[in-house]
Amino acid sequence: MALSAVHDMLRSDLEQVDRRLRQRTVNSYEFVDMAVRHVIEGGGKRLRPMLALLAAQACGYEDDARFDLAAAMELIHVASLVHDDVIDEADMRRNRETLNVRFGNKVSVLVGDYMHARVLAILVACGATEPIYRAVADATQSMCEGEVIHAYKADDFDITVEDYLNIMDLKTARLISCSCRVGALLAGADDDMVDAMGVYGSALGVAFQIVDDVLDLTGEQTTFGKPTRNDLREGKLTLPVMHARDNCSDADRETLRGFLFADERSAEDVDWIVALTQEHDGVGHAMALARKMSTQACDAVALAPASGARDGLLTLAASLVEREN
Amino acid sequence: MALSAVHDMLRSDLEQVDRRLRQRTVNSYEFVDMAVRHVIEGGGKRLRPMLALLAAQACGYEDDARFDLAAAMELIHVASLVHDDVIDEADMRRNRETLNVRFGNKVSVLVGDYMHARVLAILVACGATEPIYRAVADATQSMCEGEVIHAYKADDFDITVEDYLNIMDLKTARLISCSCRVGALLAGADDDMVDAMGVYGSALGVAFQIVDDVLDLTGEQTTFGKPTRNDLREGKLTLPVMHARDNCSDADRETLRGFLFADERSAEDVDWIVALTQEHDGVGHAMALARKMSTQACDAVALAPASGARDGLLTLAASLVEREN
Repeated sequence: MALSAVHDMLRSDLEQVDRRLRQRTVNSYEFVDMAVRHVIEGGGKRLRPMLALLAAQACGYEDDARFDLAAAMELIHVASLVHDDVIDEADMRRNRETLNVRFGNKVSVLVGDYMHARVLAILVACGATEPIYRAVADATQSMCEGEVIHAYKADDFDITVEDYLNIMDLKTARLISCSCRVGALLAGADDDMVDAMGVYGSALGVAFQIVDDVLDLTGEQTTFGKPTRNDLREGKLTLPVMHARDNCSDADRETLRGFLFADERSAEDVDWIVALTQEHDGVGHAMALARKMSTQACDAVALAPASGARDGLLTLAASLVEREN
Repeated sequence: MALSAVHDMLRSDLEQVDRRLRQRTVNSYEFVDMAVRHVIEGGGKRLRPMLALLAAQACGYEDDARFDLAAAMELIHVASLVHDDVIDEADMRRNRETLNVRFGNKVSVLVGDYMHARVLAILVACGATEPIYRAVADATQSMCEGEVIHAYKADDFDITVEDYLNIMDLKTARLISCSCRVGALLAGADDDMVDAMGVYGSALGVAFQIVDDVLDLTGEQTTFGKPTRNDLREGKLTLPVMHARDNCSDADRETLRGFLFADERSAEDVDWIVALTQEHDGVGHAMALARKMSTQACDAVALAPASGARDGLLTLAASLVEREN
């Protein structure tokens, strides 16, 4: 099964999710409603809803409540982006002005909070059980912790690969894992299956994030996307560059440190970093790790009985690693 | 029963609540933990926990889960203050530096989010039922809406008393009402009793907020407090001043508008506003409304069987209106 086949399989389901996402966030105060729409209609891959839907279906669940649950996962993600953009003072997201630029930080903080309130309301509406609430509480807590550590260690040139992967796990993989878990929980799956889905999501989430790092070096600017080499231009360490950092000469390491510490980097500086990373096959090493995680994800989900949804999860794990944007 | 008697009655319970509040927000990342402690240890009246405890007890509930539930209500309140201080760019809160001044806006946004994640975890831990989650979702949504409308209408000199009271209701009274409702819900009270507790909390919450407005004009600076005439100095409309606005001459109204619109107000300007408000008995009118709401609160709670906890609720409603700080 190809990625496009997964998309085709889920197309009408994702339309339902988008409809729920909109319906469940309608607000009678026009200003709030406008701000929410600005964010929700900004698009995105809808990865978390896809995973929640596939996990629920792979565990034999077909009721409509899965659309709400999937919408809640997307809303958690989107709310975190709104607050992240305030924190990072970001201007653009998915080729549109961020909410903080369009409406200001005040509205952004509040709209993020409003979305979190709606997440809880949606969970109530879809008949969430205690383990679902617990999974959501854990994931949202991890996301905050990941952001705080990230903000705190963002300037640490010497951050270890282990710490870096831990931040990726907290910031991104936990919610992706949660999306898979809650799908299985909604389906009433047993603990082993729920855990398997959780492991699948964790591994997939880290792999996904590593590929994001790689695409910063290798990718083309796309409709979804951040401009290529955006992270590098902003002086952010990414996994391929970290590999070069840890394997190059002391002199190159100090040059790299200087470039990343500077307030700005010239195109030549960026080219130099790219060349250093290529010299040490930073992309190759990062991709090897991403593929290993993707395989772990596939192994975990093998516990589920054969089905179109399980095939979808396997395809997703393979294709998200090989994606080009 | 005097207010001090209510405090005495609840002293050991509130110590338990504070212990839970601390235990349930401990974080292994020192930086997060420090920021959370800064906020939680900032004190406060613990009004919401008191109400949750009293409502639960008035409905016959005595299990320890009430301490967690009460802690969750305080944590929602505190998280909203953290984000409000970012939004309002506030420097001081309860005579301490705000978190945003001490740690910056980034940390404040994230710590508020972290606290909300912990609220959900605490609700799970105390065995919350669907109606409790729903009450919390509704209250947190209302608080955001209230803040947005407040931010949006903050500069509207002509805001009606009705709109102003609606903002008070959304921003403050809904969570106070929720604290009472969830106490009754935890106790397994029937719908009528839950609604009665909700009505009690709503009326008390608005009364409480009106008295806050009054104290800005009449109060002394206290250990809890905002400096006297702080709202006035910042050019914020309060209910007593609104009464003067609606009953003074057109000329005075335009003078008042000019003073409140100006970037800054001199001590003489503030004195003039105070004198105008006194002339039209703005405080008297506001207090009459607060007392009416307090009576409504007491009437609602009469549904509960006679008990020390019910007496506590009655005393709270009466004494919060007559408080001097």
